[in-house]
Formats: sequence, structure tokens, C-alpha cells
Amino acid sequence: MKAIPSRPALTRLFALGVLLVLGASVHAQTDPLTSWNDGPAKQAIVTFVEKVTTEGSPDFVPLAERIATFDNDGTLWPSHPMYTQLAFALDRIKALAPRHPEWKTRQPFKAVLDNDMKALAAAGEKGLVELVMASHAGMSTAEFETIVTDWFRTARHPRFERPYTELAYQPMVELLEYLRANGFKTYIVSGGGIEFMRPMTEAVYGIPPEQVIGSSIETRYEMKDDKPVLMRLPKVHFIDDKAGKPVGINMFIGRRPVAAFGNSDGDRQMLEWTGAGDGARLMMLVFHDDARREYAYGPANGLPDTKFGTFSQSLMDEAKKNGWVVISMKDDWKQIFATKP
Amino acid sequence: MKAIPSRPALTRLFALGVLLVLGASVHAQTDPLTSWNDGPAKQAIVTFVEKVTTEGSPDFVPLAERIATFDNDGTLWPSHPMYTQLAFALDRIKALAPRHPEWKTRQPFKAVLDNDMKALAAAGEKGLVELVMASHAGMSTAEFETIVTDWFRTARHPRFERPYTELAYQPMVELLEYLRANGFKTYIVSGGGIEFMRPMTEAVYGIPPEQVIGSSIETRYEMKDDKPVLMRLPKVHFIDDKAGKPVGINMFIGRRPVAAFGNSDGDRQMLEWTGAGDGARLMMLVFHDDARREYAYGPANGLPDTKFGTFSQSLMDEAKKNGWVVISMKDDWKQIFATKP
Repeated sequence: MKAIPSRPALTRLFALGVLLVLGASVHAQTDPLTSWNDGPAKQAIVTFVEKVTTEGSPDFVPLAERIATFDNDGTLWPSHPMYTQLAFALDRIKALAPRHPEWKTRQPFKAVLDNDMKALAAAGEKGLVELVMASHAGMSTAEFETIVTDWFRTARHPRFERPYTELAYQPMVELLEYLRANGFKTYIVSGGGIEFMRPMTEAVYGIPPEQVIGSSIETRYEMKDDKPVLMRLPKVHFIDDKAGKPVGINMFIGRRPVAAFGNSDGDRQMLEWTGAGDGARLMMLVFHDDARREYAYGPANGLPDTKFGTFSQSLMDEAKKNGWVVISMKDDWKQIFATKP
Repeated sequence: MKAIPSRPALTRLFALGVLLVLGASVHAQTDPLTSWNDGPAKQAIVTFVEKVTTEGSPDFVPLAERIATFDNDGTLWPSHPMYTQLAFALDRIKALAPRHPEWKTRQPFKAVLDNDMKALAAAGEKGLVELVMASHAGMSTAEFETIVTDWFRTARHPRFERPYTELAYQPMVELLEYLRANGFKTYIVSGGGIEFMRPMTEAVYGIPPEQVIGSSIETRYEMKDDKPVLMRLPKVHFIDDKAGKPVGINMFIGRRPVAAFGNSDGDRQMLEWTGAGDGARLMMLVFHDDARREYAYGPANGLPDTKFGTFSQSLMDEAKKNGWVVISMKDDWKQIFATKP
């Protein structure tokens, strides 16, 4: 009889077992950041969220004020070997070329058709604006949405050989979901075109169009066959980059974010603006130091310089000075994409 | 014993009574539009909402697409005897006058200081823009918010003698709440200044700042005493009126509304744009035909013409042609304000 424990003892053992099993499973289920390695970046996120969502805490932030803003290129998906939107513009120029025989001899169009990246770079910002206007304007907003949606369906990233929409950084997708689960409204605040992003942000990031802020060209309300349309005009309306990001945030949201995430010098002012508010704040920068799994560029910390998503040493210095958390892709992220390319 | 009913009979009677009482109270509790008289306007609202929220109905609208846009002046609160924001601008000019002795002899400022409404009208739109810039620019966004908030605290409507923030139309407040209770996101889309409205929309209409779209001046990101600020510049950025309303809706929301509410020719294109989408739509116009309780103006239907919130006969004709519902303040609204002024 000694070998068989008493009923109450059995019950206690069973209860303990259930607790252990449940405890473990609850813990596994409630780590919302499984693609993050344990480390200072992940810790900073969890600490911040617990602080601002704990009622009675001096750092508690009411639901309505839980605004988090995310840059897109280089923060939520790759910006190399070039911005996705530039890849779209180049493809679009090629698709439109048969209707524009003059492009065969006119820069910067000739450079695009010849795949001459040197000549393209030589065309500078003025050339880039010309390409954007030729590829992004002259149609209605509805037509542009169809063009963009079709492109996303067929285009492939040159290195990872899969649709761009499958290249969202898995740790950042988890971060977006974690913040939303804690009552945050998540916004994109990108230098990219607002109407280039909106057709894909809901499916890829869970961010609805009304929470996407970006650069825009002017549109004009017109009647076409007795139906109203918005025509896209070849004229810049707003550049949502650098000092434009706080301007865009103020215009679209009208509240200061309590958390902001970027990856380049284009995000500096957004992080400054976010950090200048009272109470707990979280500012983070994704640092691309993982050439093996993605890309490595700076020029901060001696990494190669880049035109797409420059992370300067002065930004790195400002991050240290202000307590902005720098995310090392190499060290902080267990995986980069949802599934291995 | 005959006089006393049996136990089961008593129980049945009691149950019936409870049902009757509950039924009546449920009915009373569930009329969300108590300030609306029964009639075609109220009926149109209820029919529309039931249609688009009934799963399986051919008119069902998914939650994410339930966007409703509301003009502000004349639709949610009075725009007479002048736009509230104009009253603010005039008060502000008077408050700033001691710092601007030259205004005593310079139009349109002299007209404001002399309360000379004829000279003010003669200054036209150019004069108005001058007044707006002098009263709305030259400070940071945070300073402007304080100025506006203070003004709303002290200013009184000249006829109703109460704060402007107590003059929201009660039937429209109920409509906003009814739509939100049915999963709608409610937006303001106003010709008024976006940063003039935002300090009060949450308290007055339950609409958060990020759901307020309006006209704006340019802002510039600057460092002031090592703190970032957004300075308000005397330069128009965007006019959210007439054909600008669909442009603003597309820019800020990126989705077409399924319901839109206005009161003047400034809302015509917003209603056209809303109506041009597929599926069930609701477009309504508040018609001010109630001089006794509020104001009466057109010039539609032979009412007096007005500079503030013009409802032209051609708008009335377009409403009839397109099936837009015209709300008669006199006939459709049981009461105008939350409590009688």
C-alpha cells in the first residue's frame, strides 16, 4: 500500500502537473515576439509595453494615445538592392516604353531601358522625379491602384526571388501585432508613395489604408463619362521624409506618437519628435548588419555606405545620446522573413 | 378562493408583465435616434444601417469599409451668424491688436477692430486669407492648440449665449453614435482648419484627432531651445472644400466612404464621390429651414441667400436627381441642441 499515494496526494500531484503544463504552454503562447532573440532590444520592447499599459503606473498611456509609427523601407521590409517603389517605377517605364519611342534616346528613360544603372545614377534626383512622374501620374487613383496591385502580384525580388509582399520582416510583423494586441494604433510613416503602399499594407502588415502616411502627388477631382474620378497629376504634393515626417504625423494623426521605429537618416526627425513628448517613449532603429541573411550597410560602424537607407554615424551617435535602441538584425532577430527564402 | 388565481397562473401573469416591461424598455433603449422625428430622413438612416450591417445581405459592408464622413460647419454645429472659426479669427485679431498699431489704419484689420462688417465683406477672400494668416500662423502647433482651447473655453455664441462646444446638433451626435455602434469609423471632412477643430472634436463629437480632415497651412520642423517644434507658416497647404473634399478623403483615408453628410454646396463633390461607389450608399444634406430654433437659409426653396453655408437650388436639384436625402431641421429634428439654450 505504501507504493500507492493517498487520494489527496494524487490530486495535489495532478494539480501540480496541470499547473506546470499550463504554465509552460501559457508562457509559450504568450511570447508574442518569438522571432526575436532574448537581448536588450526585445527587453526594451516588452518593458516599454508593460509600463505604458499598466493602469496606475506613472507611465500609463491611455488607449487613445497609444500611437506607434513605423517607417516602411528598411524597417518593415528590405530597401535593397533598391527601394521597392523604384523597382516598380523602372518596370513601369519599360512597360510604357512602346508608347514612348522618344524614350529610346532621352535620359533618364534611355538609362532605364538600357538597364544602365550608372547613367541612371548620373541623372540624379531630377532624373528620379521625372521617372516617378512618368510612371506614377496621368491616370486615375483607381487605375493606379490596379497597376500597383498587378505589379505586386508578378514582380519578384532579384535576390530572394519571391514577391515583395512576402518579404516583410517577421520580427517586425510580430512587433506590430504585439503593439496592436496592447491597444496601439500602428501607422506607417514612409517617404514612399502613399498610394503605392496602400494596396498591400493591410495584407502584409495588418495596417489599414487610413493608417498609412506617405509622400504624395497632387490629385484633381474630375467628371469622366459622368462618373467622378481623381486624376493623378505630375506634381509633388508632399514629401514625407526627414523633417517631413513629423509634419506628416501632425497633419494625419494630430497626436504625437509614443513609439517610433525607423532604420535610416530619413527617420531621425520622427524619432526626435516622438521622444520630445512627456512620459515613457520607445524609439528604435533597425541596423542592417546582416549581409548573410539580408544586407549590411551604414556607413555607421564602418559598414559600406549606401544610397538606399543610409544609417550615418551621426545618426548612430544621436541614437546613443538619446537612448534610442538600435536593433541588430544579426544579433536580435532569430529569423528575417516568415519562411526562409 | 376564486378571486385568487392559481400559482401557475400568477407565474404566467408575472412573466407576461416582465416581458411587456422589458420589451418596452428594450424598445426605448434601442431607439438610438430619439431626437429625430419619425419620417423619411430617420427611416433612410435606419434602413441603410440595417442593410449594410446584415451579414448575408447583398448590401453587407465589411467592418473595415464602414467609413462615414461628416462636414462640420452647418452639418454638426451652426455656421451662422458666421463660421465659428471666423469668430475665432476676429477675436484673435482684436487680442493681437495692441502688438500691431499699424492695424488701426490698415484693411482688413481696421474693419475687424471697428466691427465694420461691411468693410470686412468688401475685403473679400484676399482679406479673409490675410486675417487667417495673421491669426493662425506664426506660432508652434502646441501654442496654437492652447490658444484655440482657451478660446473655446471663453467664447460664447452671440445668439445662443453659450460655448460653441455646447452647440453640437443633438440629432447628429446621436447619428454619429449610432453609426459607431454599428461599426462605422466616423470622420469629419471640413473646409475648416484641421488644427482649429482637433482640440474639441473628441469631447464634442466623440471623433478623435486622427479622424479629422480639414484645411491646413504649412508647418515647418524646427529646433527651439533644443526641443523640436512644428512652426505654423503663413502659407496655405491644402483647402479641404468643394472638389478638395474627395481629394482630402482619398489622401487621409484611402477608402471611399459609404455614407456622407453635408449641408452646403461645399459638400457636393464629397457626396458625388461617395455615391459613385458600388453597393448601398447613404448621402444626406442638412437643410436649414428653421429660423425659429436655429437659422433658415438657402437660397434653395426660396430661403434667404447666405455667405455661410450656401445651399443652392442646383444642389437641391442634384440631391433630388441622385436620391440624396435632404434633412429638414424643422420637420426631422425633435430638438436641435442637447439642452435648450
